[in-house]
Amino acid sequence: MKLLEDRILKDGKVYPGEVLKVSGFLNHLIDESLLDEIGKEISARFKDDNVTKILTIEASGIAIACAAARYLHAPMLFAKKSKTSNISDSCYTAEVMSYTHGTKSTICVDKDYLCAGDRVLIVDDFLARGEAVKGLISLINQAGATLTGCAIAIEKGFQPGGAELRAHGIRVESLAIIESMTDTSLTFRH
Amino acid sequence: MKLLEDRILKDGKVYPGEVLKVSGFLNHLIDESLLDEIGKEISARFKDDNVTKILTIEASGIAIACAAARYLHAPMLFAKKSKTSNISDSCYTAEVMSYTHGTKSTICVDKDYLCAGDRVLIVDDFLARGEAVKGLISLINQAGATLTGCAIAIEKGFQPGGAELRAHGIRVESLAIIESMTDTSLTFRH
Repeated sequence: MKLLEDRILKDGKVYPGEVLKVSGFLNHLIDESLLDEIGKEISARFKDDNVTKILTIEASGIAIACAAARYLHAPMLFAKKSKTSNISDSCYTAEVMSYTHGTKSTICVDKDYLCAGDRVLIVDDFLARGEAVKGLISLINQAGATLTGCAIAIEKGFQPGGAELRAHGIRVESLAIIESMTDTSLTFRH
Repeated sequence: MKLLEDRILKDGKVYPGEVLKVSGFLNHLIDESLLDEIGKEISARFKDDNVTKILTIEASGIAIACAAARYLHAPMLFAKKSKTSNISDSCYTAEVMSYTHGTKSTICVDKDYLCAGDRVLIVDDFLARGEAVKGLISLINQAGATLTGCAIAIEKGFQPGGAELRAHGIRVESLAIIESMTDTSLTFRH
């Protein structure tokens, strides 16, 4: 998606450890017009898949998942990162390691909201090692729901997550795939 | 907003301690069409205020803030609940107590994204004691930005937050204001 690639080149910031910061337009401050275009693009790629539910993980996946949900006309469910007093005891849970933040968390969704009949599209802002997506797939499997695919804004193509998921036959659509990234250059895979 | 009130009556669940659970349509599983109408309604109420930025707090405010941002054509900034390795050291911070979850957290926004020239609309899913909104106002004040008002999906009118904010001359627009709530009944203020 050229609009997203151009924006990454213009406003993305690269930090040591192959960290790409897109906080200025995608996951802290969010450009609402770019977000809308991302929602349209995800919808265009999955519109024939009879998606009944969009699944993401708090917090940075929520905006993108909402934009996709709007155009796919499907409700959006976000997995919470820790149990709160406000969530039902009746949850599907999975463990997720975040290498970016160096933390491990339990993600959960209420069993009432993810069902065997659901055709689920996973949406997230980043795909790197694929830990978050694997956790979300575990929730889908526990519910007996069907995974239709994964829509990712930015995939770090030099990390193994995307290749592993595709090797398992999972459809992964990333709107921008970074082929390589150094402090001074960033190239995309097409 | 009748659409929201009707949905609360239909699908909201009341728990002891005056907890209203709207996880089935607003802050866990999210009805994308209701969300879009909420965005339109917030926009209709604040469209003449030259809003340059929508400010909310992760995680449950993000979806509503995105919907409002889309119709107000302004970028959305969400305050993060704890410092992560991915956020700049250069942040405005505030302490926020959550009575619902019994936790205290530090919220922060990157100083780069909240500026003196900004006219900021605060958006959130719930207003009860007003702790989250007060934290967000502190961030706005630290930045020297201007608060245009607060757009809230559901206000618990029997708790003091809304009255306190209005007593300070702050414009608070709540799309549904709950007058009273018991295990068996729920009434709205009009």
